[in-house]
Amino acid sequence: MRMRKRAGAAELLASHPELVVDKPEKWQERFGNEHPIHIEIGSGKGQFVVGMAKAHPEINYIGIDMQLSVLSIALDKALEEDLPNLQLLHVDGKALSEYFAENEIDQIYLNFSDPWPKTRHEKRRLTFKTFLETDETILKPNGEIHFKTDNRGLFEYSLCSFSKYGMILEQVWLDLHASDYEGNIMTEYEEKFSAKGQPIYRVEARFQSNQ
Amino acid sequence: MRMRKRAGAAELLASHPELVVDKPEKWQERFGNEHPIHIEIGSGKGQFVVGMAKAHPEINYIGIDMQLSVLSIALDKALEEDLPNLQLLHVDGKALSEYFAENEIDQIYLNFSDPWPKTRHEKRRLTFKTFLETDETILKPNGEIHFKTDNRGLFEYSLCSFSKYGMILEQVWLDLHASDYEGNIMTEYEEKFSAKGQPIYRVEARFQSNQ
Repeated sequence: MRMRKRAGAAELLASHPELVVDKPEKWQERFGNEHPIHIEIGSGKGQFVVGMAKAHPEINYIGIDMQLSVLSIALDKALEEDLPNLQLLHVDGKALSEYFAENEIDQIYLNFSDPWPKTRHEKRRLTFKTFLETDETILKPNGEIHFKTDNRGLFEYSLCSFSKYGMILEQVWLDLHASDYEGNIMTEYEEKFSAKGQPIYRVEARFQSNQ
Repeated sequence: MRMRKRAGAAELLASHPELVVDKPEKWQERFGNEHPIHIEIGSGKGQFVVGMAKAHPEINYIGIDMQLSVLSIALDKALEEDLPNLQLLHVDGKALSEYFAENEIDQIYLNFSDPWPKTRHEKRRLTFKTFLETDETILKPNGEIHFKTDNRGLFEYSLCSFSKYGMILEQVWLDLHASDYEGNIMTEYEEKFSAKGQPIYRVEARFQSNQ
């Protein structure tokens, strides 16, 4: 999701170093506990990651986005709450192995990632194998990616990409909102587009440990 | 798909031993060549398997169904054509390893299989692991199952069942008729239900050879 530049976004983010970081951290020290760490790659305006952090205080969440403007809106939402289990990371999702140690992360969320529909842009899709390699590195053994999207082409592609990488599809939803799945936290985009009757696809895919 | 009993179905089938069999065969001898063999498990009224046999004379097809009445309708369709590459097998799909040798089959089609939606009936679904074990035995190494259905729950289940069995999802379609897939042969059921706007799901899943 692209949005126009927000004036003062960089300054706003810089003024909250307790919530926003842009360099590698010792995450357990920063959270001050050893709770599991879940990250959302491409957290956009933050409704999902803030909602998850509210709903699951026993889990630490990190929302990651490279766009200053949307991350500043996520910060607005975070500031309305008082969530010791939430951090925002302003970096490019491509380089995540620089910001997390091996096996540091318990779970990864991808929500409504850019579909990059043209075949020549396949390598930019966040479910392309090079991203999965990084994800596998930072995840604990048998870690999972939970991915949802309304984009049929990207979902078809991603199911196969996960499978060909050697991941196991643990569960698949082809119409999440018509299912009995409980605890779904909608993203801003999901609220808008599901209202038009577009099905939301979801998958939980697990890396197979070789250890 | 259930239909009412058709009077004389058994006699009709018995009167065409050149096309209909109900016991193990040496299939290459019966076809008189070494072309690849594709089977449809649950071929119903036969529109798919007859259509495929017409479209692909270089492949041998076997339509399998346990219901006399629907198989007799498939026989009607086969008799209208002159297809040396088509056979009908009147047996229960559960016991396929009795009718085919190991590694004898090149590809398996499942079309609109009974969804058996209740959890306690999971074992009856044709994509349950015990069926996949049989399929893997009779298929050549790296053989594929091509499966289509309009049933969302069965498709969600089957993607995961294939994956957990160790199969690779080669390609997935979440709205086959809206895709650029070419050469689709519709079943009778598919014609009827896709006209109502129901998406048709399709997957090509490959067994991973351990050989």
